[in-house]
Amino acid sequence: MNTRSSRRVGRPRAQERPASGLEPREEVLAAAAELFTTHGYTATTTRAVAERAGLRQASLYHYFDGKEAILAALLEGTVRPSLEVAHELVSRTQASPEARLWALCHSDVALLCGGPHNLGALYLLPEVQTERFAVFHRVRVELKAAYGELLAATEPGAALDAEDLALRTDLLFGLTESVILIRRADPGHDPQALAAATADAALRVAGVPQRSLARLRREGQQLLAAGA
Amino acid sequence: MNTRSSRRVGRPRAQERPASGLEPREEVLAAAAELFTTHGYTATTTRAVAERAGLRQASLYHYFDGKEAILAALLEGTVRPSLEVAHELVSRTQASPEARLWALCHSDVALLCGGPHNLGALYLLPEVQTERFAVFHRVRVELKAAYGELLAATEPGAALDAEDLALRTDLLFGLTESVILIRRADPGHDPQALAAATADAALRVAGVPQRSLARLRREGQQLLAAGA
Repeated sequence: MNTRSSRRVGRPRAQERPASGLEPREEVLAAAAELFTTHGYTATTTRAVAERAGLRQASLYHYFDGKEAILAALLEGTVRPSLEVAHELVSRTQASPEARLWALCHSDVALLCGGPHNLGALYLLPEVQTERFAVFHRVRVELKAAYGELLAATEPGAALDAEDLALRTDLLFGLTESVILIRRADPGHDPQALAAATADAALRVAGVPQRSLARLRREGQQLLAAGA
Repeated sequence: MNTRSSRRVGRPRAQERPASGLEPREEVLAAAAELFTTHGYTATTTRAVAERAGLRQASLYHYFDGKEAILAALLEGTVRPSLEVAHELVSRTQASPEARLWALCHSDVALLCGGPHNLGALYLLPEVQTERFAVFHRVRVELKAAYGELLAATEPGAALDAEDLALRTDLLFGLTESVILIRRADPGHDPQALAAATADAALRVAGVPQRSLARLRREGQQLLAAGA
């Protein structure tokens, strides 16, 4: 309460601020996430985002230089946390690559399905193919490369030639991101159950035999519990 | 040439018709596919679609009652041919369910990656969640059910309980549709190679052991060659 009343002393606001307790920048991102995924990106104006966030439009421009910058921040938020997990997992060479791949896929799916809005649905906007989103694309490419690095270190992955490895990596990464489509068609999935099932499926796609799955899943869960 | 000059006698056109040789309705769909996937659905007007198709706007309304009807037709075209293949494959009970699942996935991926535009990218538009697209959603649900039916008939699928079967079906169908995301990130994939690799991965997700894959792939290819 204190925070909210002290806020009112500062920058003037268009209307009562939502009671979410978020900082204004986060409030803008939350409002944009909702409007972009429900009304559509093209149909949403920065004015509408500002209103939803309880800010004047001019205040929104204090945090973002326009609608594309807001979209870029939302998209980067769907890949950057997973890339940090991936870097951590790639460096934990004492654990098996298979278990680390399981943990990466689980963590990535949990992120993609975790928030209140299906932000991955915005990946396919034509606007996202422009230079403005270069950082998002770079982080996503680095994330996919981490999948490829872990896959190459697995026993079945080590047997693949470069072309097959690249294609298998695309399929692994595609399987992970397909939860965006699964979530759209059926929003009722429990994110944790979907994450575990997708991570199991990722190991199957990697070529891990059925008899090793239960053990590798336990190892992967331990890696996640250890904060990887 | 004869067809084009005889066309000119009929319905008046806004401009020279493209030399594609398509019927006007197909011309509208091709123009809309290009504009929706490159400029965006919201940003594209029926006037722009008509101009691209070389028709007057009024002529476009002779074939479609608006932009949503065009989008619905495009979306249905991404699932209906695969549903027909699925019905054919489900009925071919003399072939193994694993090989039929391989063939369905291959055929579906080849359709999703086959045309000049990545129409699956339109699945995630917020507009597509409305009642107007009920037929598309129904056909897609029936297509997914065919994956589930074939999966349930496989040896590993028969061992799954109902909940696991539903989740595994979602993942199989998601893996197939993930080629939409793969194609967006890297348009250079050869559709046939991607289809074969995805169908292999689908059998892995289904739980088919590595040692059976090569045989089942050959059986699946024979089913496709036989026109399934």
